[in-house]
Formats: sequence, structure tokens, C-alpha cells
Amino acid sequence: MKLALAPFAAAALMLAAAPAIAQEADKIDKAVKARQSLMTLYSFNLGLLGGMAKGEIAYDAEAAKHAADNLAALTAIDQTGMWPEGSDIETLGEKKSAALPVIWTKTAEFAEDRDALTKVAAEFAGAAGTDLDALKAGIGPVGKACGACHEDFRQKQN
Amino acid sequence: MKLALAPFAAAALMLAAAPAIAQEADKIDKAVKARQSLMTLYSFNLGLLGGMAKGEIAYDAEAAKHAADNLAALTAIDQTGMWPEGSDIETLGEKKSAALPVIWTKTAEFAEDRDALTKVAAEFAGAAGTDLDALKAGIGPVGKACGACHEDFRQKQN
Repeated sequence: MKLALAPFAAAALMLAAAPAIAQEADKIDKAVKARQSLMTLYSFNLGLLGGMAKGEIAYDAEAAKHAADNLAALTAIDQTGMWPEGSDIETLGEKKSAALPVIWTKTAEFAEDRDALTKVAAEFAGAAGTDLDALKAGIGPVGKACGACHEDFRQKQN
Repeated sequence: MKLALAPFAAAALMLAAAPAIAQEADKIDKAVKARQSLMTLYSFNLGLLGGMAKGEIAYDAEAAKHAADNLAALTAIDQTGMWPEGSDIETLGEKKSAALPVIWTKTAEFAEDRDALTKVAAEFAGAAGTDLDALKAGIGPVGKACGACHEDFRQKQN
């Protein structure tokens, strides 16, 4: 009797676990989308500021200030819940995430990289609306802070 | 001679215009992605808060405060550049955008709807971390403000 029921019991266990697994996958999917959305918004605002710095877009003090304020607010967003374990490139594959698993072992360094960006973005917000020279001087450290975190925690892009 | 050159001149004009058209399409594409990213982040934070309000997620004052602060910061992001004309459902098709063209005729009402959300989200940020009752009381007006703008300016979803 025990033997005959074993396959049924195993199937029942799997069925019982399925909603929990689906829920976990949904949580990870939403977390990845949220952090990628945040990066898209960093990039949207940096695109305008970078265009001005390179002289491709005419400098506009108000627009520069808005974009730099946005960037400062976005980099200050609390990212709790956006980086659940199991949301790395090795687990999800490179089409879904470029996040390196080292994020979950070097947690202090990861937090430091993020805090460094928040700090320089806040400084940049105080400068970008002053004049083009201030924008040009301030955007370098922001790009450097973005790059530092990518260097440490993101799969190299081709 | 003039007639013989006409087709060439027309082709040359089209070639000259092509980069400008591509640039415009790229600008619209980036704007749509930016505003959709913003909505994804609204939803990510509201998802946690809504889960707590419904009792599906255990109330955690700190997590609630973080999420509501995020939401307030996100709704205060300056959206200049995110809503260029020609980025509506009729121009881009429903797979790319649900934005109704009326956004560009009822500009004052559109701004009012957004400002209303910014306002209630700021109030909610002051309440969500107090206790579960305050969260429950505050989340209604936020959802209502989201819905009001969708009702006015977004294609009905199936």
C-alpha cells in the first residue's frame, strides 16, 4: 500500500509546491523589471545631460536642473526588494539579467557602489542648472559611479 | 535637365531627411520606455503596499515607509520629455502605447491629474509607516488618483 501510494504522494507534493514556485518566479520577474526600469530612467535623464555636455543638445539651465534633480531622486530610491537572490545572470540567463551572482556575496561593496552614485548624483543636482561648465564638470563623477558598479557587478556587455 | 534631375533631387531630399526621422523615432521610443518604466516603478511599490493593505503581506512599518517614500519621489519626478507628441496609441499602435491623443489637447487636465497623484502620494508617504490602519486609509486616494488619470488619458485595458 505504501509503495503504491508513493508516486501519488510525490505528485501531490509537487502540486502543492507549484503555487509557491510560481509566486517566487513572479517576485523575481517583478524585481528584475523594477530595477531595469530604474536604470532606464537613470539613462533617460543622463541622456539629456550627456547630450548637453557633448554640445549635441543646446544647454538649457531649467531642463538640466530638472533632469539632474530627477537623477538624484531616482538614485535615492530605496532598492529593497529589487535584488532578490536568484535574480542573477547564471540563474535567469543573459537575456533576462546581467546581474552577477557576486552581488549576493559582496553585499557591503554593492551597497557602497550604490551609495557612491547617490552621493555624486546629489552633488550634480546642485550644479547642473548653474551653467554648462558646471554641468560638464559634474557629469564625469556620475558616469564614473555608474561605471564602477557595472564593472563590479554587471556582466560585461558586448 | 530640370525634369531629369527631379527624381534624383527627391531621393536626395529623402536621404537627407532620413537621419532626422530616425532620430525622432528614437526620441519617441525612449520617451515611451521612460514613462512606462516610471509606471512599472509606481506599480512595484504599490504592489507591496497593496499586499499589506489586503493582508496578503505582513505589515512592516519600515518597508511600508520605504515603499511609500519611493512612490512619493517617483510621482514627483519631472516628466518633461516623456510625453512627446506622436507617442500616442493611434500613431504607435496599441502594442507600443496606450496613451490617448487627448493628452496633447487637454494638457491642463493632464497636468492636474498628475499633480493630484503627486499630492496624495506625498500625504501617503507621511502615513504608511505609522500603522496598518493609516496605510489602509491612505492607499485608497492613491489608487483613485492613478485610476483617474488612466480613465481620462489611457486606452481602456481588456
